[in-house]
Amino acid sequence: MKNNVNYKLYLVTDRNILKNNDFSKAVEQAILGGVTLVQLREKDISTREFYNIALNIKKITDKYDIPLIINDRLDIALSIDAAGLHVGQKDMPADIARKLIGKDKILGVSVCSVDEARKAEKDGADYIGVGAVFPTSTKKDADAVSIERLKEIKESVSIPVVAIGGINENNAVLLKAAKIDGIAVVSCILGKDNIKQAAKIMSERADNIIY
Amino acid sequence: MKNNVNYKLYLVTDRNILKNNDFSKAVEQAILGGVTLVQLREKDISTREFYNIALNIKKITDKYDIPLIINDRLDIALSIDAAGLHVGQKDMPADIARKLIGKDKILGVSVCSVDEARKAEKDGADYIGVGAVFPTSTKKDADAVSIERLKEIKESVSIPVVAIGGINENNAVLLKAAKIDGIAVVSCILGKDNIKQAAKIMSERADNIIY
Repeated sequence: MKNNVNYKLYLVTDRNILKNNDFSKAVEQAILGGVTLVQLREKDISTREFYNIALNIKKITDKYDIPLIINDRLDIALSIDAAGLHVGQKDMPADIARKLIGKDKILGVSVCSVDEARKAEKDGADYIGVGAVFPTSTKKDADAVSIERLKEIKESVSIPVVAIGGINENNAVLLKAAKIDGIAVVSCILGKDNIKQAAKIMSERADNIIY
Repeated sequence: MKNNVNYKLYLVTDRNILKNNDFSKAVEQAILGGVTLVQLREKDISTREFYNIALNIKKITDKYDIPLIINDRLDIALSIDAAGLHVGQKDMPADIARKLIGKDKILGVSVCSVDEARKAEKDGADYIGVGAVFPTSTKKDADAVSIERLKEIKESVSIPVVAIGGINENNAVLLKAAKIDGIAVVSCILGKDNIKQAAKIMSERADNIIY
């Protein structure tokens, strides 16, 4: 699976912004609308709760053969046999994470600069997430990354690059110049009433900007 | 190392109750005073910070050949090659944790009842932590366990039993009837000005009650 990952429309979860949707059903609707990859991101809950939620979401992603990536927590990724792990600069060092998850799992790393991007690739990342490319409400401490810098980062590495941060149906087109491999989104899908429809719109936007 | 673990005086860390002591030095002083096992417990910090703290504390525990157990976080335990992992009922299920850490690592499980104790042993625990045996300020959501029940739990399993929760130099003697294998403490060592002296006192108390 690792060699055929489609990064086009990468859903990062946030249960807190769901409207009247059940979490598992919301993820399923997003997949039905065109999401190609799912990252489960949970903060401030117990390990047991995270584990149980991850098991539930994995049932959905497995059903549609969509890779499930766990944010930050290598223990959760290993315990549910997720497809991969995504680490930020405040999470486990990427080289340590790579050793512990093995070569067959997908490893993603969040970066904001060319230096961080090159280091991530060297440390064993399969892809990098770059952002925040636009102002975002779901991760307030995120550094800003201009589209120009996104382009520089993309040109500095040979692994896939996914842009993240405040991307929506209106601004996605601005990313076209960076020639990236995918867009990662949260609110513009999960924050909508009709999640499947929102994912479909974002999938069309992604088709127009992804190389 | 796993087969020769001395559970007599088990220090569980809490950096927030330290007086004017540096954390690494505090742990070292506790070991010099007689602590036989150290559990690193951290909440509400990033994975990277936990990892860095764990690496630092491991330098101290390795220096004195004292096993370092990581609370809750299997990812941290694996990443620093800790001696073991301790899980509570809200952490990763013990049987999953055992599979992921392998048979050579120490696995501890927090329990409050005979049923939980038997399940922990069946799931692969090397020891159980039972408490809170006295009212405690460092874990306010802990269930209360009477000394009578502690004794029943001890009699129901064949693995070592460590009592935890509000144990200090004055009340430790009350645990003698339960014939346990060790006492786990936080404040009565780390909350004191002279940590080495406090550990020495608790070590003497433990000598009088441990079988």
